[in-house]
Amino acid sequence: MAEAYNPATFRALTWHDHLPAFRDGTDNPRAYLERCLEAISAREPVVQTWAAMNVEGSRAAADASSARWREGRPLSPIDGLPIGIKDLLETRDMPTEMGCRGYKGHFPKRDNAAVWALRQAGAVVLGKTVTTELGGSHPGPTTNPFNPRHTPGGSSSGSAAAVAARMVPAAIGTQVGGSIIRPAAYCGNVALKPSQGGLHRGERQTTSMSTHGVHAGSIEDMWQVAIEIATRCGGDPGRPGLQGPRTPPASQRPVRLIVMESEGWARLDAASKSAFTALLVRIAGTGVELLRRGDHPAIEAFEQGIAEGRALSAAITGWENRWYQRALLDADPEAISPRARAILERAEAMSPRDYQAALAKREEAQLRHARLAGLADAVISLACPGPAPVWEGDRPGQPLAPRPTGDAVFNIPSSLLWAPVVTVPLLAVGGLPVGVQVMGQYQQDARVTALARWLLENVPPLAA
Amino acid sequence: MAEAYNPATFRALTWHDHLPAFRDGTDNPRAYLERCLEAISAREPVVQTWAAMNVEGSRAAADASSARWREGRPLSPIDGLPIGIKDLLETRDMPTEMGCRGYKGHFPKRDNAAVWALRQAGAVVLGKTVTTELGGSHPGPTTNPFNPRHTPGGSSSGSAAAVAARMVPAAIGTQVGGSIIRPAAYCGNVALKPSQGGLHRGERQTTSMSTHGVHAGSIEDMWQVAIEIATRCGGDPGRPGLQGPRTPPASQRPVRLIVMESEGWARLDAASKSAFTALLVRIAGTGVELLRRGDHPAIEAFEQGIAEGRALSAAITGWENRWYQRALLDADPEAISPRARAILERAEAMSPRDYQAALAKREEAQLRHARLAGLADAVISLACPGPAPVWEGDRPGQPLAPRPTGDAVFNIPSSLLWAPVVTVPLLAVGGLPVGVQVMGQYQQDARVTALARWLLENVPPLAA
Repeated sequence: MAEAYNPATFRALTWHDHLPAFRDGTDNPRAYLERCLEAISAREPVVQTWAAMNVEGSRAAADASSARWREGRPLSPIDGLPIGIKDLLETRDMPTEMGCRGYKGHFPKRDNAAVWALRQAGAVVLGKTVTTELGGSHPGPTTNPFNPRHTPGGSSSGSAAAVAARMVPAAIGTQVGGSIIRPAAYCGNVALKPSQGGLHRGERQTTSMSTHGVHAGSIEDMWQVAIEIATRCGGDPGRPGLQGPRTPPASQRPVRLIVMESEGWARLDAASKSAFTALLVRIAGTGVELLRRGDHPAIEAFEQGIAEGRALSAAITGWENRWYQRALLDADPEAISPRARAILERAEAMSPRDYQAALAKREEAQLRHARLAGLADAVISLACPGPAPVWEGDRPGQPLAPRPTGDAVFNIPSSLLWAPVVTVPLLAVGGLPVGVQVMGQYQQDARVTALARWLLENVPPLAA
Repeated sequence: MAEAYNPATFRALTWHDHLPAFRDGTDNPRAYLERCLEAISAREPVVQTWAAMNVEGSRAAADASSARWREGRPLSPIDGLPIGIKDLLETRDMPTEMGCRGYKGHFPKRDNAAVWALRQAGAVVLGKTVTTELGGSHPGPTTNPFNPRHTPGGSSSGSAAAVAARMVPAAIGTQVGGSIIRPAAYCGNVALKPSQGGLHRGERQTTSMSTHGVHAGSIEDMWQVAIEIATRCGGDPGRPGLQGPRTPPASQRPVRLIVMESEGWARLDAASKSAFTALLVRIAGTGVELLRRGDHPAIEAFEQGIAEGRALSAAITGWENRWYQRALLDADPEAISPRARAILERAEAMSPRDYQAALAKREEAQLRHARLAGLADAVISLACPGPAPVWEGDRPGQPLAPRPTGDAVFNIPSSLLWAPVVTVPLLAVGGLPVGVQVMGQYQQDARVTALARWLLENVPPLAA
């Protein structure tokens, strides 16, 4: 059942702390899986997380994993871990329908690169999690596990909610604008959106800002899942891929953090603003120095570089999605929702020159971010503009709500900047989670994880 | 029938010069298509160019195009142009089997981005052209149109041969190492391998050096096809895409050209060496200044940067192809040929660090190439190491021939450097075509085309 969320008391599902029990036989991955299936039975009717499941295949995979642990030869620390895969990624044993009528029945019978790597590591691919339509703004049926009247966020709605509802310890999401970090922040997950190209996207290389990432109940499982993928299939072709230790990075105390305003701060409700401000007071109380836009011209220049990030991101992604969405509509005029069609038509008014100009602006923002490297360990901000908004569906006859899964305004910067970012559940506002994110320089994924872990372990969370 | 090739007398099939006849009704795309089909009937039994065809669909498309020309409203200058598509690219109306047992019957019923763009421009997608297995070294059945005992080159074997056999005026190929330019050079085509990411690869973003490119009978058709694609679907996500005029660039006289040796020069047979040297004398005779490695330290540094390009390219591409080829073998142990399996096993001995080191070397080579920009208009070299070698199949009980479709040694540099390159048919050696290539700086595709056009129009070709 839904319950008011408190980050100080909520206990997410974890995997890493079960390994001793798998080794000594007091627990095993099959039993773990059955507990996940029980949680799914209990919560799925309201939360509506799964687009497809392969329960029998998962039981067989969990049995094989249990045998490997019993024999002392697991394939990896995530051997047996039940995981959800966002339904944008191809899976050889389940359809890939992308929340889109145009892909109804789509079943390419191949594994996405990351899914292939997860299976190589022994992970149990339990099912496909609900995505908004094509990872865009048109929502699926998933509800927020802490209050079903509210959105779980999107587009990785099912992945975020499955972790929050304790159905699985981890799930794969994807982000182009804010699709990993925002739902994770609304659902109290820990999540990593890696440096651009850090995890091999396989067939999902449609847009220049999309990344695969990991939702988890713990920062240890988050890192372990990510690094097991990167070790086996690397990053995108031509990218070095996620780099860092083979086990979760130890926590690292930041000396100095830059507090990012972005477009989000001005839009924030009073309660979230004061909760985050109070949290910053706690962080400063530990001796961490906080810098703001007034403190250095490079920070001011950085803020100005992302000041119109939302429009810039919409232009770039709109253009990149243009041709294949038009191709879908050519085949079936109802292939995509009216919400997506409106976005497509705006993109079709762009010229190649407009796209090239947007790329140049993005590159300038990246250069401004790179100049912050010497000033501070990382950037910190809210990971979502307050708690998840109420969403109970479009109203017939009314204009379409522009952002039914919430506003990506705090997530756009890390997407545009190709920067690694980790959200941690340090706040609650009105009984719902609100995430706090740490963003680092390109390829500093392990460092950002270590800094975020320090905050999680050393700053008392705050329920407003 | 096959005949000795002479670049001075061979007349390739062209499209651009038919537009007045389409406009005034003395010819039309349907009649043009029927002539192509006649050429295919005559030559296909020996040349073996096509993996699949959609003749009925093409006739309907050509009829629709004929009507548009008749009504004076063609969709583009290539409206009605019959084109072959390398069978690595997805097409909604034909299977995509990639010359690979693991993809037998593969029929995703979607169009690759470039195929979609071609249809938007009115082009008639006549069929899928034979590719080597997965674009690698294991050959398909295609023979060289000028002598069936010789390879047409690969991996874009069918695309190169279809153009050379006058079956179509243009065809789409792809290149990772030398898969567009080498077969084009062996078959007497004009061809463009654009700047990396210049033409949207759609689902074909598996490797960091692959590009879509155009084989054609004329430089005019080559450019027009490329720019029509780029105008409609752009380049890869995050890339500016092919830039240049909406009609073929006028020819431009080079002032200074750098003669590239690369790994290829030392491996070259005497006849090809002396033919190319004689051609350089003709070029110098027009007043173009030629620079070589001894003439400037930056040229020497450039040559050293690509001196082990073949091994570097093999390492990068091997690693990038690794995971999906292993996934194919997991599903079917016979999915790929023994030739491809041997390459896969070498790649599987690499670590992520090895791959990262190879990327760093490639970047260094790119920087050295960039430093040439001020020294000369472009780089010139042979586009293949002599005429197409004899290839009559593997011999049972003998070791596998390492390069049955010829050696990419002159093509690897432009692939590694992400540089645009155009090959033009200026030589024959032993009755077979040998291409000459012009390579430019990243995004100078139009300039390279203009320089190559000048050579084609001003330097008398040479048959040795």
